[in-house]
Amino acid sequence: MKLVLAVVQDDDSGELVERLVKNKFSATKLASTGGFLKEGNTTLMVGVPVEQVEEVIGIIKEVCRSRKQTFTTPIPPTGSASVFIPYPIDVMVGGATIFVLDIDRFEKV
Amino acid sequence: MKLVLAVVQDDDSGELVERLVKNKFSATKLASTGGFLKEGNTTLMVGVPVEQVEEVIGIIKEVCRSRKQTFTTPIPPTGSASVFIPYPIDVMVGGATIFVLDIDRFEKV
Amino acid sequence: MKLVLAVVQDDDSGELVERLVKNKFSATKLASTGGFLKEGNTTLMVGVPVEQVEEVIGIIKEVCRSRKQTFTTPIPPTGSASVFIPYPIDVMVGGATIFVLDIDRFEKV
Ligand code: NI
Ligand code: NI
Ligand code: NI
Repeated sequence: MKLVLAVVQDDDSGELVERLVKNKFSATKLASTGGFLKEGNTTLMVGVPVEQVEEVIGIIKEVCRSRKQTFTTPIPPTGSASVFIPYPIDVMVGGATIFVLDIDRFEKV
Repeated sequence: MKLVLAVVQDDDSGELVERLVKNKFSATKLASTGGFLKEGNTTLMVGVPVEQVEEVIGIIKEVCRSRKQTFTTPIPPTGSASVFIPYPIDVMVGGATIFVLDIDRFEKV
Repeated sequence: MKLVLAVVQDDDSGELVERLVKNKFSATKLASTGGFLKEGNTTLMVGVPVEQVEEVIGIIKEVCRSRKQTFTTPIPPTGSASVFIPYPIDVMVGGATIFVLDIDRFEKV
């Protein structure tokens, strides 16, 4: 068994847990914040048989890979809205930091 | 030293911490949720001298072992309560997942 | 890479994260409580290249070392306040428990 610790964005954590559970991995979510000023991340802890570590990392990469997301600028709250044309902006979202640790002993009670 | 990580049910965590502290183990509680849809678990982190790992695992097993608990069905909120007879139902509670990790270095500041 | 887990007092965690980030370490804060009845601690998780573990532990020691802090006794809320003279009391604050773990594999996605 290995212990996979993954720090992911809050917004990706729901889908990641869903995908892991669907593949029969049992993930525990730890409330967490931070990492270079980024708010709102989640740390997942997953006990994984050695031969499935690759599969779990693959799922994390698929769901959480850092990617561009296009938002439309909101209409400014005050003033000359009549001349304002909303335009798309690209923001990087996602990303994950993954630590795989050896387990000395594993028990289910 | 070893690091024992135990994911236990919220309802068992209070007694478990009490028992660990009474036996001079220092446990840190991490807020956590999840694992196959189960809400309300707690992750405990305990630094343990190698020769006492067995004792800590024994305490966790004693307090958190998965067990049947009998509840009485509540009276239904509406309708024909006059003909309803509450009856006992068995529910599985407890259970723990335990990871024991090697510690490369340990410091108290 | 090593994984440094540090359990520190809430009141030291802000400055510690600030100091770590200023030195280019990425720290994740896990909400935590407990350890021998002490409320209000924080667990920090920091992925650290082997050759910088000493530096990170040095920063933790500097910020979180256990130390005396002098408080002035508050004026008692009721009664004979006219004869009460506030006096200083020393309280131990700070302290940290540090676990350094080996990392089998490390990935940034
Ligand atoms: Ni969010
Ligand atoms: Ni509960
Ligand atoms: Ni505080």
